[in-house]
Amino acid sequence: MEEKDTSRLEAFSDGVFAVAITLLVLNIKIPGLELPADKLLPDDGGDSLWQALLDEWPMLVAYGTSFATIGVMWLNHHRLYKHIHRTDTILILLNLLLLALIVFIPVPTALLAKYLERPDLHTAALLYSGTNIFMAICFNLLWRYASYGNRLLGKNVDMRSVAAINQQYLFGPLLYVIAFAFGLFSAPACIIVNFILALFFALPGRPLRALPEKVQPAEDEGA
Amino acid sequence: MEEKDTSRLEAFSDGVFAVAITLLVLNIKIPGLELPADKLLPDDGGDSLWQALLDEWPMLVAYGTSFATIGVMWLNHHRLYKHIHRTDTILILLNLLLLALIVFIPVPTALLAKYLERPDLHTAALLYSGTNIFMAICFNLLWRYASYGNRLLGKNVDMRSVAAINQQYLFGPLLYVIAFAFGLFSAPACIIVNFILALFFALPGRPLRALPEKVQPAEDEGA
Amino acid sequence: MEEKDTSRLEAFSDGVFAVAITLLVLNIKIPGLELPADKLLPDDGGDSLWQALLDEWPMLVAYGTSFATIGVMWLNHHRLYKHIHRTDTILILLNLLLLALIVFIPVPTALLAKYLERPDLHTAALLYSGTNIFMAICFNLLWRYASYGNRLLGKNVDMRSVAAINQQYLFGPLLYVIAFAFGLFSAPACIIVNFILALFFALPGRPLRALPEKVQPAEDEGA
Amino acid sequence: MEEKDTSRLEAFSDGVFAVAITLLVLNIKIPGLELPADKLLPDDGGDSLWQALLDEWPMLVAYGTSFATIGVMWLNHHRLYKHIHRTDTILILLNLLLLALIVFIPVPTALLAKYLERPDLHTAALLYSGTNIFMAICFNLLWRYASYGNRLLGKNVDMRSVAAINQQYLFGPLLYVIAFAFGLFSAPACIIVNFILALFFALPGRPLRALPEKVQPAEDEGA
Repeated sequence: MEEKDTSRLEAFSDGVFAVAITLLVLNIKIPGLELPADKLLPDDGGDSLWQALLDEWPMLVAYGTSFATIGVMWLNHHRLYKHIHRTDTILILLNLLLLALIVFIPVPTALLAKYLERPDLHTAALLYSGTNIFMAICFNLLWRYASYGNRLLGKNVDMRSVAAINQQYLFGPLLYVIAFAFGLFSAPACIIVNFILALFFALPGRPLRALPEKVQPAEDEGA
Repeated sequence: MEEKDTSRLEAFSDGVFAVAITLLVLNIKIPGLELPADKLLPDDGGDSLWQALLDEWPMLVAYGTSFATIGVMWLNHHRLYKHIHRTDTILILLNLLLLALIVFIPVPTALLAKYLERPDLHTAALLYSGTNIFMAICFNLLWRYASYGNRLLGKNVDMRSVAAINQQYLFGPLLYVIAFAFGLFSAPACIIVNFILALFFALPGRPLRALPEKVQPAEDEGA
Repeated sequence: MEEKDTSRLEAFSDGVFAVAITLLVLNIKIPGLELPADKLLPDDGGDSLWQALLDEWPMLVAYGTSFATIGVMWLNHHRLYKHIHRTDTILILLNLLLLALIVFIPVPTALLAKYLERPDLHTAALLYSGTNIFMAICFNLLWRYASYGNRLLGKNVDMRSVAAINQQYLFGPLLYVIAFAFGLFSAPACIIVNFILALFFALPGRPLRALPEKVQPAEDEGA
Repeated sequence: MEEKDTSRLEAFSDGVFAVAITLLVLNIKIPGLELPADKLLPDDGGDSLWQALLDEWPMLVAYGTSFATIGVMWLNHHRLYKHIHRTDTILILLNLLLLALIVFIPVPTALLAKYLERPDLHTAALLYSGTNIFMAICFNLLWRYASYGNRLLGKNVDMRSVAAINQQYLFGPLLYVIAFAFGLFSAPACIIVNFILALFFALPGRPLRALPEKVQPAEDEGA
């Protein structure tokens, strides 16, 4: 196999993804954990405890959503770096920018969970949706920079996969802007559309319509 | 050695396991850590401090149990990926689902520790036991998906090891359901049975009864 | 490729960088996260929430700055270990000292953010700047130790890259001392100069003036 | 190079070491971080802030000591796994036990820092010292198990290095018990002796007296 220069960049990114996805659990509070034993919930055979646990449901939903979001981001990162085999300073800085957004994800998600049953949800949904737009732009920047003229791709890169990613990413930021626009009218609609988009980007891109040479990066400039 | 596609998936999973297992220590509170120096425990030659430390015992038990549980999960993950050599989107998503459960483990464990000396323990034990059932199901889904017809296994996989894992995992969810049923009657029994099951899954599976071809994945479909 | 002894040292360092950079997000507080639902901000259609979020701006600036700083440190670490191929106990201890400083970065940064709008900023800026001086010294120690007489460098190391790093690092501590001196007169100037220095060290070093043999490590002693 | 089975065990351990060593910084509190802007320290040109920072010195000492301790443990782990090339279930479980102790280190260290200026220090010093005894025993168990009859060592292991480690580790638990005994009389003496021992184990072991065949593992049983 051709030697990859990106192994340490991938290892560092994996570490950041792993910590960010694990820190999510810190938002789930355990009822009464901070209280001394004599000030706990009334001991009524578990009824109060069940109730306290059930009241945590927005945090559980936020945990699931954030975990899925960061997981799908990792999946996309993994997919891009299958093709990216070399690094330079700009790629590393774009990768850092992307990681800064990924590490930030728990903030708008926790906000969403906290305000899920109040009209302020509006504000939280827009912040959440806005973060996703920046993320989509950032993934695009990273990929366009690396794939332009095969700048940093592997020597024997599969052109059809590259074209498929190009096509799938082309509409990413636009779709997230539409999701944001939904948020101006209905917070729940905004959240649902964002969730559907996460699922969409979990799937590998496929050249839906036959795309021959047009979207392919200029092969004559390739390494 | 045959090239493995799973190295980055394993690295990411290792990171998640490592963070999850290390965060457990955050549940152990240091007596008086938050207090200013003049409001600390009475300075009676250490008696109050010893007492405060001893009162932490449920948290220490929870630390030990969670550490052992996540450690054994890592051991099982490691064992499966010795045989799984290729990835696809579904495997990565199943792996993410598994990681989401592993990261969640500290929550029911801390709950168990907090309510260990109260009747509410019942509720906590059922939640803890229920998490384990989902975990066992998730490990099964991952393994069945990867090993079905040798879908994602290595080319020269040891069929006897695969059969041994198949057999050991066959009874996993059922055993954890039985442990859960114990919890309906006795919380301590439930905890002990769960602990024994963790030990059981720490051991490598062995084809106890001679199992020739029956449990083996269909070799004719293998890669 | 020549075998590298440093892979585990790099993996451990990557882990520390990844955790340190991810923990930064814990400083961003979510408005009202700790409060029960009935004591949240007044529900005035989101105005109070927007205001509370906007009031977080110093924390967001601190998050961005710290993320960039630790990211650039990782970039430099990565650059040095492209050339360092062997380890010994002293290198590992110097690397540990460097990691201890990197993990410490969030402390002066959070202090800076907290006191950004008060005269005490002075104190915070000096602490922040002082940490950067120690960091620059530490990077120099690590690199000088490893590169002296090619002690721990790879066999086919590119002498021109080594010379470029030598030259760039030569002025590092001095530049940070100057930034510190700025802090004695103006805290904002100190912060801005530190930021410019971080950008400077993000760029790869180049032998600006033609430097033939003088700065090169003694080749005759090389491995 | 001979293939190593231990790469994933080392990667997981590196992750745990990295997280544990980074979490130490969370014990350093930033003065006034939790307070609203109008309840901060009096704004007297930085005097109160300097004072508040200086009052943090026990936490800084604890940070430095814990960082050094966990760093030296990593160094020893790294040293052992240079020779250990194969794994089995018992090795993985012993390694988990060791990691559980390493993750626990911040607890007695923070306790030590909190009670550094009170007579209760006694209690804290004994707990700290006791943890170190268990750590030394655990390192011994791991190494003795792996090296007995070259059970899990590499094929071309350097017998002199193995003998040097054997000799250095032989006295480890005993030395830590002596440090513990010091703690029964003087807490400061106990802390200093523990610190010296950490330095001692940072150095690579050397066969001080010429030890020919006696301490070497039985070569005839080797793999």
